[in-house]
Amino acid sequence: MPFIVFEGLDGSGKSSLMSAFERELQSKGLKTIRTREPGGTPLGDEIREMILRRDGPAPTPRTELLLYEASRAQHVDQVIRPHLEKNDWVLCDRFSASSVAFQAGGRAISEDWVEKLNDFATDGLKPELTVLLDLSVGESRRRRNNRESQGGEKEDRIESEADSFHERVRQAFLRQAQQDPKHWLVLNAGATPEELLKQLNEHVRSLKWLGF
Amino acid sequence: MPFIVFEGLDGSGKSSLMSAFERELQSKGLKTIRTREPGGTPLGDEIREMILRRDGPAPTPRTELLLYEASRAQHVDQVIRPHLEKNDWVLCDRFSASSVAFQAGGRAISEDWVEKLNDFATDGLKPELTVLLDLSVGESRRRRNNRESQGGEKEDRIESEADSFHERVRQAFLRQAQQDPKHWLVLNAGATPEELLKQLNEHVRSLKWLGF
Repeated sequence: MPFIVFEGLDGSGKSSLMSAFERELQSKGLKTIRTREPGGTPLGDEIREMILRRDGPAPTPRTELLLYEASRAQHVDQVIRPHLEKNDWVLCDRFSASSVAFQAGGRAISEDWVEKLNDFATDGLKPELTVLLDLSVGESRRRRNNRESQGGEKEDRIESEADSFHERVRQAFLRQAQQDPKHWLVLNAGATPEELLKQLNEHVRSLKWLGF
Repeated sequence: MPFIVFEGLDGSGKSSLMSAFERELQSKGLKTIRTREPGGTPLGDEIREMILRRDGPAPTPRTELLLYEASRAQHVDQVIRPHLEKNDWVLCDRFSASSVAFQAGGRAISEDWVEKLNDFATDGLKPELTVLLDLSVGESRRRRNNRESQGGEKEDRIESEADSFHERVRQAFLRQAQQDPKHWLVLNAGATPEELLKQLNEHVRSLKWLGF
């Protein structure tokens, strides 16, 4: 069954769209699982904490990439593949495209290396569809500040990078989408939640996957 | 200055030989640092605990390799390279050859992949010399049991693997040494500490490194 990944800057509305789309799938009687990276497994959650915390020793760029990939390998082996084998729809918040965006785009590690490590960590598994919620860096920052001022989570170590970092990340997402339009859907994250769900539904319907 | 790695099964006497050799270097007025993998940095020590603990979620084989490589990248960036740049002698307990032995030999991950990941994690850094303390699996197990019965550390998750695993690890160490005799020295770990130090001293002297 399809493996669908949701990508975008923080604050782009991935979680809301994933929830709404999951309800849509469930209303059709389809079995789903929603998961995320880094994390998605007990060991992955420990690795997530190591990557994102703002106290404690910070990883250097190559270490950071290897930690994301370690979390990913565990996630593929213990969660994603087993659910795909049971014919569940797997919805995942961030996957290998995030490493290309953040570690190649943001940290300037060579894209060749990031893709090699993605291949190893995923054991060659690729999503059928990656949905990019495209958002400007300014709007992403505004939404994160709102979250924080409303008592939500504080910025993590990656979120607290400079705007120039997040701009490179955004461009690296858009570049990946342009290079593989068959497997990517780019949505304007400024649209209303209802419009976003409608556009995603229409796109998925056009792919004629079983049961949708 | 030289970067020297000590490899071998657990119980092969790496620590004792490293201590003795470090004293030898220091007696000649040379500056040294002794370090180890996994670990060698605060973040690396956290990763070490994740890999070796026997409780808590265990990594799958690909995750395990990526965690070793994450610890290695941090170690190279924050400890090994900075000390080599200061002209210190760096003595390291385990390095990339251990990943070839344990993850390719032991876990049957392809050697090509392990070497690619080693290249990435080390940023191309290779030791001038790797000293292999070769020991039979039976003797390694006997020494580990002794350690435990004398109130020493309990077997970790890797040590507690079957003898057949450790036999593949041993053979993968020997194979690496055979393939690159210029950069490896194989010592019989059954020799006395004095003999081992003498053989290592003679070998290092023959390499005519400055100051030794």
